[in-house]
Amino acid sequence: MFNKFNIKPLWEVSKILSAVAQGFQGADIVITNAKLVNVCTREIIENTDVAISMGRIALVGDAKHCIKENTKVIDAKGQYIAPGFLDGHIHVESSMLSVSEYARSVIPHGTVGIYMDPHEICNVLGLNGVKYMIEDGKGTPLKNMVTTPSCVPAVPGFEDTGAVIGPEDIAETMKWDSVVGLGEMMNFPGILFSTDHAHGVVGETLKANKIVTGHYSLPETGKGLNGYIASGVRCCHESTRAEDALAKMRLGMYAMFREGSAWHDLKEVSKSITENNVDSRFAVLISDDTHPHTLLNDGHLDHIIRRAIKEGIDPITAIQMVTINCAQCFQMDHELGSITPGKCADIVFIEDLNKINVTKVIIDGNIVAENGVLTEEIYEYKYPEDAMNSMHVKNIITKDSFNIYAENKEKVKARVMEIIPARVGTYERHIELDVKDGRVQCDTNNDVLKAAVFERHKETGTVGYGFVKGFGIKEGAMASTVAHDAHNLLVIGANDEDMALAANTLIECGGGMVAVKDGKVIGLVPLPIAGLMSDKPLEEMAEKVELLGKAWEEIGCNIVSPFMTMALISLACLPELRLTNRGLVDCNKFEFVPLFIED
Amino acid sequence: MFNKFNIKPLWEVSKILSAVAQGFQGADIVITNAKLVNVCTREIIENTDVAISMGRIALVGDAKHCIKENTKVIDAKGQYIAPGFLDGHIHVESSMLSVSEYARSVIPHGTVGIYMDPHEICNVLGLNGVKYMIEDGKGTPLKNMVTTPSCVPAVPGFEDTGAVIGPEDIAETMKWDSVVGLGEMMNFPGILFSTDHAHGVVGETLKANKIVTGHYSLPETGKGLNGYIASGVRCCHESTRAEDALAKMRLGMYAMFREGSAWHDLKEVSKSITENNVDSRFAVLISDDTHPHTLLNDGHLDHIIRRAIKEGIDPITAIQMVTINCAQCFQMDHELGSITPGKCADIVFIEDLNKINVTKVIIDGNIVAENGVLTEEIYEYKYPEDAMNSMHVKNIITKDSFNIYAENKEKVKARVMEIIPARVGTYERHIELDVKDGRVQCDTNNDVLKAAVFERHKETGTVGYGFVKGFGIKEGAMASTVAHDAHNLLVIGANDEDMALAANTLIECGGGMVAVKDGKVIGLVPLPIAGLMSDKPLEEMAEKVELLGKAWEEIGCNIVSPFMTMALISLACLPELRLTNRGLVDCNKFEFVPLFIED
Repeated sequence: MFNKFNIKPLWEVSKILSAVAQGFQGADIVITNAKLVNVCTREIIENTDVAISMGRIALVGDAKHCIKENTKVIDAKGQYIAPGFLDGHIHVESSMLSVSEYARSVIPHGTVGIYMDPHEICNVLGLNGVKYMIEDGKGTPLKNMVTTPSCVPAVPGFEDTGAVIGPEDIAETMKWDSVVGLGEMMNFPGILFSTDHAHGVVGETLKANKIVTGHYSLPETGKGLNGYIASGVRCCHESTRAEDALAKMRLGMYAMFREGSAWHDLKEVSKSITENNVDSRFAVLISDDTHPHTLLNDGHLDHIIRRAIKEGIDPITAIQMVTINCAQCFQMDHELGSITPGKCADIVFIEDLNKINVTKVIIDGNIVAENGVLTEEIYEYKYPEDAMNSMHVKNIITKDSFNIYAENKEKVKARVMEIIPARVGTYERHIELDVKDGRVQCDTNNDVLKAAVFERHKETGTVGYGFVKGFGIKEGAMASTVAHDAHNLLVIGANDEDMALAANTLIECGGGMVAVKDGKVIGLVPLPIAGLMSDKPLEEMAEKVELLGKAWEEIGCNIVSPFMTMALISLACLPELRLTNRGLVDCNKFEFVPLFIED
Repeated sequence: MFNKFNIKPLWEVSKILSAVAQGFQGADIVITNAKLVNVCTREIIENTDVAISMGRIALVGDAKHCIKENTKVIDAKGQYIAPGFLDGHIHVESSMLSVSEYARSVIPHGTVGIYMDPHEICNVLGLNGVKYMIEDGKGTPLKNMVTTPSCVPAVPGFEDTGAVIGPEDIAETMKWDSVVGLGEMMNFPGILFSTDHAHGVVGETLKANKIVTGHYSLPETGKGLNGYIASGVRCCHESTRAEDALAKMRLGMYAMFREGSAWHDLKEVSKSITENNVDSRFAVLISDDTHPHTLLNDGHLDHIIRRAIKEGIDPITAIQMVTINCAQCFQMDHELGSITPGKCADIVFIEDLNKINVTKVIIDGNIVAENGVLTEEIYEYKYPEDAMNSMHVKNIITKDSFNIYAENKEKVKARVMEIIPARVGTYERHIELDVKDGRVQCDTNNDVLKAAVFERHKETGTVGYGFVKGFGIKEGAMASTVAHDAHNLLVIGANDEDMALAANTLIECGGGMVAVKDGKVIGLVPLPIAGLMSDKPLEEMAEKVELLGKAWEEIGCNIVSPFMTMALISLACLPELRLTNRGLVDCNKFEFVPLFIED
């Protein structure tokens, strides 16, 4: 298991820790007079000291005897101390930030470790992308624990990606120091239908004695969920109803309650605990996907804990859900997740347990943040050339690239993807659309827009066409290279000229997200790292994204996080209907379906 | 981690399990209509079915669709089903039974797995002894998970054993399939004083990513306990007070509540949970040492669960303490400890949750016991010659072998070991004894007996002498080769002739326990396997031990489990005063002390 943080493994320093605990030698740091949030016994222990040496905890209790000449003493009077927060499932790419900038952004909020699934970059750059993000993280104090993306492509045969990952690749990465498990196993149909690939990637992870993280998004909690868990999947963050989460916990699966920027599952899913008198050890809080403005305005896990408390979960229980429970999920509780002897000295100071206002953060025995500001230097990482130059669309895009043909018809009945605001699903709707000159028209009066997905990794020249409903947009166009999970170039819009401009703007700037109106770019978020992330600071990114949001509003969209909802239009593993560069996919039956329904 | 039970690893059968859960193929067994003890959520779930295939659980819930032509259906109407019970710390040698006979004895009580610390045989035969016990276990369905003895000898420099185990040996055994961790790290002084040996054996275990089990028997729960845990020790079964167990759980250490034949800790230690509103996930129930009559009359973990319930612990919580909590302690919860998909199909049927009356036991998908009787064949194992011939005392023992000299004195003040019935400790008492002809006499009027420990492994000819108090014996003698932890030949008695006869009786029969009165053997338990265990059935052994107990009574002893108390007289790692073949040991200061106090 993963033991290579920024400190030495326990067996190299255990003699020193034992000696420090005894008072035979001084601690590096002693925290005094704290109110300890004991996540092992779910109690507050008043007047607790903590002695730290070699980046690890030597003693918890009365530590006066550990204070010697060179010991730094931190008086925590009036403050709570809790174990550092762990995010059990996170795609850093969704923050649009580099890993180092992400670390700078979340550490002051109490986050000390993340279980990163670099699924997005892997779809663009393969395992090289994963390596780049690991390297990027190394210049920060954040514990960047990696789960190797399992589903690249997400739904094989239905889309084209920049890379294909197989069981051999998984086996190879399981030898990497930073890799603690397998990324979310979205291909639950592959598991349920016993395919070699799906069971192969899971199996290689189990053989390496590492953790398989899951993704089971069906409301079915009987034979499907059982068949999925039976393969060895240990956790899942896709519960949207209390009964989903409760079923998972009852089946010994860690239910990861998600509260991201776009998906607000906590309100419903919390009821699995608050309305049932159950042991909550299998419950974990995670963010999954968080946008810059959420990180800047709300925070990270501190915000999610506050949300959990608001939903009626006891503060200590909520803190267990980002500490000991998460560490036990990953069988890393011998290193992380509690303030107990021998563990990494990852400690969060909190002023008010109901507000979770973090005043100080210690990682591996170093004070890394105080009062919301990172106090540790972060080393900048320059992503290699292939990461910074990832737009490879074959054909030049013009307004004619968006023609959807239906010869000799006046009207067609189209399969339309209707989005559900703040939810990951879509509905399949059947809607009549006008045809002019053999070309199907969108219908802004009925909120139906055109959509196109251009392959952008290997110049295959493939493009898929469809229609979307629910954004409320009346004019202009949007494009994004954040288009899950293949991250091809997705364009939606009310007119073809603006769609072409949107697409070409992104090709030119190396990828990103753009809004266009009347032949003008009115909002642009450049994401030059793989077309997914920026090398710019959080504050700048949050501002750019906010301006893009205003641009969306300007063309008529009022839903929350429209980027994220748009970015899932191409995600062919979520129900009901999706569009990839290969065409329209029925995501319940997992088959391509024609765009038009013949009567 | 350990994956080699009697079934295939999950990654080899996951496709089948997923298919069975879906109903694409039939289960081997379906249990229907059970009341499931859900240890994940701490609930009873009524009307639950369980589908089993390939020795693993495929589905929990409604399993009608898993029943096909060749499926065996077990109607559990009216019955509870719980995960198979796990004993987190057990010395099989204390049962005086072979591993296979032990398995036959405990499986019908619901025990499906043990974490065996073959510490006793290792002191006699070294790692060969450990291997023999592993081989012996292989002929049974019991999951025999091994922790390599850490402290052989228990207190280096204070006793002579048949073998010496060092960090290199530990590293070697960590590669063995059956080894899941390190046996109880009794040498806590070695940890606290940062010795290479102690930190070496712990370190080699941590490097192998396995579990270090502990033994911290001091009432001190501050700097000593912290310094001990900081070295990487994960659990401890030596709590005798509620505050000991609570302190350990608060420090992230699994507190193993012990209820053995001789040590009844549960009454006090249970209060750590029942009198404090704490999360109990760090609490585990274990037996440590159990004698044949306890196994026969009371049972095993079923009995300990009943005891826990009697002490006020909720039945489901108590069951968690022998299932999920134990599995999480050993980071084996992905294989064991819950009835959830993918796990080993280890299931106990219980009629009444307050009585824990086990009616059926399934291990790895096979019905192995019904109504108290093992239904599975057990393959007999023949221990090799060196195990069956382990008595190597150098000098012939006569009554003169028991002379304790004090020339030119009429009285001496001796350091006497006073036993504490049903507790592991002893007190050091200073008592005046008569001297006749230069030889110190015991004093049966004051309950003071003579004691001697003869080295029996390597014919060194060493012998230690002392006095014991507290047995209430008036005449005769007792001897035992079960004499923790070196298992030399321990003799106590009221007269030298009977002591010699007792010693020689054991030398002749290959070891065991004996009581002698008036020149006659009045009770004998032969233990020919390493002088520790028998190859005879439980019932026979229980009878023999009972007869030996009556013999003890006949010579005046009325305490509970006097064998066990006697067997600890030589255990130099427990306070306060002990006797080894090298002499009298002050176990608080860890130094040899003279038998007599000079005024």
